[in-house]
Amino acid sequence: MRNLESMALRVREGVLSILDQTLLPHEERWVMVEHPDQMVVLIQKLAVRGAPLIGVAAAISFAHFAELGADETELKVAFQKLRAARPTAVNLMNAMDRMASPSTIPSTAELVRRAEQLFDEDVELCEAMANRGAALIQDGDQILTHCNSGGLATVGVGTALGVIRRAHEQGKRIHVYVDETRPLLQGARLTTWELSKLKVPYTLICDNMAGFLMSQKKITRAFVGCDRVARNGDFANKIGTYSAAVLARHHGVPFYVVGPRTTLDENCATGADIPIEERDPQEVRAGRSPADAPTYNPAFDVTPRSLISGIVLDDRMM
Amino acid sequence: MRNLESMALRVREGVLSILDQTLLPHEERWVMVEHPDQMVVLIQKLAVRGAPLIGVAAAISFAHFAELGADETELKVAFQKLRAARPTAVNLMNAMDRMASPSTIPSTAELVRRAEQLFDEDVELCEAMANRGAALIQDGDQILTHCNSGGLATVGVGTALGVIRRAHEQGKRIHVYVDETRPLLQGARLTTWELSKLKVPYTLICDNMAGFLMSQKKITRAFVGCDRVARNGDFANKIGTYSAAVLARHHGVPFYVVGPRTTLDENCATGADIPIEERDPQEVRAGRSPADAPTYNPAFDVTPRSLISGIVLDDRMM
Repeated sequence: MRNLESMALRVREGVLSILDQTLLPHEERWVMVEHPDQMVVLIQKLAVRGAPLIGVAAAISFAHFAELGADETELKVAFQKLRAARPTAVNLMNAMDRMASPSTIPSTAELVRRAEQLFDEDVELCEAMANRGAALIQDGDQILTHCNSGGLATVGVGTALGVIRRAHEQGKRIHVYVDETRPLLQGARLTTWELSKLKVPYTLICDNMAGFLMSQKKITRAFVGCDRVARNGDFANKIGTYSAAVLARHHGVPFYVVGPRTTLDENCATGADIPIEERDPQEVRAGRSPADAPTYNPAFDVTPRSLISGIVLDDRMM
Repeated sequence: MRNLESMALRVREGVLSILDQTLLPHEERWVMVEHPDQMVVLIQKLAVRGAPLIGVAAAISFAHFAELGADETELKVAFQKLRAARPTAVNLMNAMDRMASPSTIPSTAELVRRAEQLFDEDVELCEAMANRGAALIQDGDQILTHCNSGGLATVGVGTALGVIRRAHEQGKRIHVYVDETRPLLQGARLTTWELSKLKVPYTLICDNMAGFLMSQKKITRAFVGCDRVARNGDFANKIGTYSAAVLARHHGVPFYVVGPRTTLDENCATGADIPIEERDPQEVRAGRSPADAPTYNPAFDVTPRSLISGIVLDDRMM
């Protein structure tokens, strides 16, 4: 495989490494990945996360495994495990289905070509979304975002955060309100880290503060990413997105979703068909509640198309 | 002073102690309080919290200080410090104004009598709210609550959580969804602790999950406490309450506020007149964001009367 370089994934002289996002922002530790089983664990513990990045990382891990000499049986097992690593973001299934099928594994050269293509394509899709979405941002906008949808969630500039970055690069004076995004704090840990590097002014808030800011007219627009978009425009995204969309609607704040075509799922008619991953209760307890506190921990929620202003795809608005 | 006993404040043989709520649920440590300066610090760091409890605790600390021999000058200084310990919950000002005035300090015997009366009255107010509010709860209700409004927030059974407790005691089958209540997690740490002791079934959630639960029709009613109610029924309560009220309105979920008459502020015409305390950025950062991340950390928000179903006072609905 040729060298590949992004904010959280790289291939250098045939060595695949990923940035362990669970350790950000305090430590930037790169982990070498050789076996797809490692990649599955890294995806499941959110060391590798973000719908587009998960898809590209799984595809690259798969091709890399072939390069290291895995036989067809091993590749078929790896294919199934990678494809099933997490259930909600459809980019993973879409990417793996472009690499191979359960019964047919292409040659190593072909797998490498396809993985490199998925990488390059994600970079291009991000650019297209960034340019299209930035046109929706006005000078002076105060923008709410949720979770992380930047260079850490893709191998390009990002989806929603790529849009925000592009508006900043265009010289628009913007301010970003960053939902911390409980339980795993992708906003507090990752989006702040990216915005600091990009020198985009921001304010970190708890998720439950966005509504109060809207009531004070301090938020003029909202941009979030997505993990799966159904045919009717309903979409799944990080838990808390639905509440933010309801709040935005109540206050008349335009609310945009940003995602590449690889996040569309033609097999889902509506949001009700999107499977929602539930995760470990300890993520919610976080050592602060009674150790046996019963919890509910959906990683995502579903927002109906009717609540939002539009979906910024790479090739069109939806 | 006679012996007084509540979940988080007690006087035994002339010794005043408070339960340090910052250490719950993992440690139940009682702290002896002699000087009002100590009480001010305990209130400011939320070791003592909950609008009614703050008022009663400040009054008792003040009378106790007199009993320990403080002179009039010391009492006048203590009066001002206690009354100004936190700005939003009006119970504190109301309680202190019933104890004394900046210029006139009653006798020690009178201060003790007044403090004991405030304690007894809070217990009675809680009983009245619990009975009135429980009538609004139906068998099978799934109830959202935010922050902690129980025995830890008052010296009685509580406000909103007292209502929930009473419905449970009446044999109604209920389930409570507990907002963890970022940033200081009064829901995750305190409400869960109380509900466990009371054996009321509950599920702990992150604040950003309540909307998704409502969209699934899993929440049938919401009860929260309050820190100050304006003449027109607008009210301040823990940050996140406003968002919960907007979500409830969007989903047609009845939303009730519970508070004693000591939480009314006749001097505030509307919610816009209620001062909102902003607290240390470190509470939001919590060691997980970049160390210098700019934050916004209002401890409370204001919800307009028009968004809610009603306010359960001890003597009437508002």
